[in-house]
Amino acid sequence: MEKLYGDAVVGQSGGPTAAINATLAGVIRGVKENVHGGCIGTLYGMRNGVEGLLEERLIDLTAYFEDESKLELLEHTPAAALGSCRKKLPKMGENDAFYEQMMAVFRKYDIRYFFYIGGNDSMDTVAKLSEYTKNQGYEMVILGVPKTIDNDLVGTDHTPGFGSAAKYIAVTTQEIIRDCAVYRIPAVTIVEIMGRDAGWLTAASAIGRVVNGVEPDLVYLPERTFDMQRFFADVRAALAKHPNVVIAVSEGIRFADGHYVGEGTQTGAKDAFGHAYLAGTGKALELAVKAEIGCKVRSIELNLPQRCAAHVASRTDLSESVKIGRAAVKAAGEGISRRMMTAVRTSNAPYVMEVGHSDVSVIANKIRYVDDEFINADGNHVTDACCRYLLPLIQGEAPCRYENGLPVHLVL
Amino acid sequence: MEKLYGDAVVGQSGGPTAAINATLAGVIRGVKENVHGGCIGTLYGMRNGVEGLLEERLIDLTAYFEDESKLELLEHTPAAALGSCRKKLPKMGENDAFYEQMMAVFRKYDIRYFFYIGGNDSMDTVAKLSEYTKNQGYEMVILGVPKTIDNDLVGTDHTPGFGSAAKYIAVTTQEIIRDCAVYRIPAVTIVEIMGRDAGWLTAASAIGRVVNGVEPDLVYLPERTFDMQRFFADVRAALAKHPNVVIAVSEGIRFADGHYVGEGTQTGAKDAFGHAYLAGTGKALELAVKAEIGCKVRSIELNLPQRCAAHVASRTDLSESVKIGRAAVKAAGEGISRRMMTAVRTSNAPYVMEVGHSDVSVIANKIRYVDDEFINADGNHVTDACCRYLLPLIQGEAPCRYENGLPVHLVL
Repeated sequence: MEKLYGDAVVGQSGGPTAAINATLAGVIRGVKENVHGGCIGTLYGMRNGVEGLLEERLIDLTAYFEDESKLELLEHTPAAALGSCRKKLPKMGENDAFYEQMMAVFRKYDIRYFFYIGGNDSMDTVAKLSEYTKNQGYEMVILGVPKTIDNDLVGTDHTPGFGSAAKYIAVTTQEIIRDCAVYRIPAVTIVEIMGRDAGWLTAASAIGRVVNGVEPDLVYLPERTFDMQRFFADVRAALAKHPNVVIAVSEGIRFADGHYVGEGTQTGAKDAFGHAYLAGTGKALELAVKAEIGCKVRSIELNLPQRCAAHVASRTDLSESVKIGRAAVKAAGEGISRRMMTAVRTSNAPYVMEVGHSDVSVIANKIRYVDDEFINADGNHVTDACCRYLLPLIQGEAPCRYENGLPVHLVL
Repeated sequence: MEKLYGDAVVGQSGGPTAAINATLAGVIRGVKENVHGGCIGTLYGMRNGVEGLLEERLIDLTAYFEDESKLELLEHTPAAALGSCRKKLPKMGENDAFYEQMMAVFRKYDIRYFFYIGGNDSMDTVAKLSEYTKNQGYEMVILGVPKTIDNDLVGTDHTPGFGSAAKYIAVTTQEIIRDCAVYRIPAVTIVEIMGRDAGWLTAASAIGRVVNGVEPDLVYLPERTFDMQRFFADVRAALAKHPNVVIAVSEGIRFADGHYVGEGTQTGAKDAFGHAYLAGTGKALELAVKAEIGCKVRSIELNLPQRCAAHVASRTDLSESVKIGRAAVKAAGEGISRRMMTAVRTSNAPYVMEVGHSDVSVIANKIRYVDDEFINADGNHVTDACCRYLLPLIQGEAPCRYENGLPVHLVL
């Protein structure tokens, strides 16, 4: 195979995470360390993903990150330093102008390498671009680098970004359980965790079980149908054991009729400004427990900090994210294209992760759900096997640099 | 003055914080180190505050904490290791049985020293007990040790527990601002922060201004009347400057008519279960902005993690909490009673904090509001002076011990 020489471009797409910049740093390190074997000249960053690429809002990352200390800062900066977008590429043949514009940018900058760090939709972008450039006879290496806190990409053991979100959730759950234990009056605390389709993040609230035995009393994932009466019975049984009941729920849990539990509060509810009110899953359950059981109830939506709490990132996650970014550059140098880099767990104890790659077309637009063996028979908790799968991913702390009491972030 | 010999009891009361256990550790250290000059024999902990005292649910802390490593764990454990209560003591003469029962416990254990770690209501307990024991001619030293994330106790420069909550809020706000910066479409993110009466915690979201220039666009405190039309104008002006507007609001902001902004959603709103719906301040403003401005809006309620996120505690706060606990024991040994220990800032740059004490009767049931000079003229942000007051309190990190990826907490 002949070597392909040219410049490279890297972008970040979809929802930000605490580790997506570590992956970007891995790509930059790979280029700087020449793991591509001399194929890549300059590495450009596209601002706001393919949107910025079309507008030629590019930054020369090779030049910007000459300095090692900047790369370290980047690794500990949450969100997406290059900016992100939620652009879904047009179907082949539906908007030729779009693709032609992009081809023009590739040609202008002699871009032959395209790295796209993202989730599901981003892999769709990788698949479509691969197809288009191939049809055009434009030789180009196009690789997807996975990223999502949701851990719901198929073809990979787990996704970069998930471990840090899982660590934030596991640590915060431990602290919430401590907080809730201080009073003696019966009280239910409902923690709503991200995950519209898959329950991986919610499952992470229970990791404590295999560490110190501290975990929520009940855990509900979107993989199982939610039944309000069974839920009430579960809560009553938990309250019979001790007064401080803590429950973790996925935002995406649904009733048997397919409606989200959080939708309940939409039906007919109007706020003071006359608008239909969507309360969220935790709030809906809080109101339900208050009405049915009558004890003190509180709901906590962990919200954005789940994906941006870099100050409590998982060291394993950050170092794997760097590793997978670097490996993408190496794979590109070997001419591997139209693939998504993947995490392969070759051993669980001791935990060993190696980087592989999968056909991107089988990954795009699919969802990986929590395995059946990871959910208990009653559908109200996770299994030990689930905790053992999750535990290695939150190992190690990755303290950011603090200056004057606050974390130092890199702003590109 | 003759020395008073006897045993001591310490309790924790009111809402938990990330530093109240550090204060407890300080009291224990003070007793172990004999800073009381030989006055105190055994130090008992009362479980769930005065409630547990009445039921003689006492733990011998002198024996339990022989080991230094346990004290260190205690200092990094959030919530209240002894448990807490929200008991308001009866007025003098209204329930003699209550006080007699307590006196019986004091006599039974020969308790002559009483340390109560808590906020406003706890200082009321200290004041009442002081009065009662004095009337009974029972010689006893009774001291309050301040604790509240709200920083709203009068007579002290700040309160233990506030610095850690402020650090959590300041750090999380930095991360949220990074997260919100990734997209280019106009979006408003509203962060709801604790503080029913005083805006200290909300003000902490802006500390970044004097560190790295990163702060919310707008900050609303309960000390200023909230006006919805002025708020809309503020938001529009912010959106005109950049697309990613972040706003910090106290849960306690109110309209000119005295109603809480969060109450808005109660009016007539019913959830799916037929119950009046209290959405919270952030949610109410989210709905208002969506209706009036129509851009993407999100609200985030920081909720319990504000007071229990020990993993990101302020080192200054934890060490001052220990110091103030120890100082209480020393003061007790000197016969000082019916006082609350206070933090005295003798210098701001360099920051120096010394421990003092104030008459507890002037502290109980009062609220310290954010100073006028700390709020800008428009009432929609804090001043530099405010940030400079807050900054020393979040200095330094106090990493907890992690084991297998999770923080280690002490469970008493």
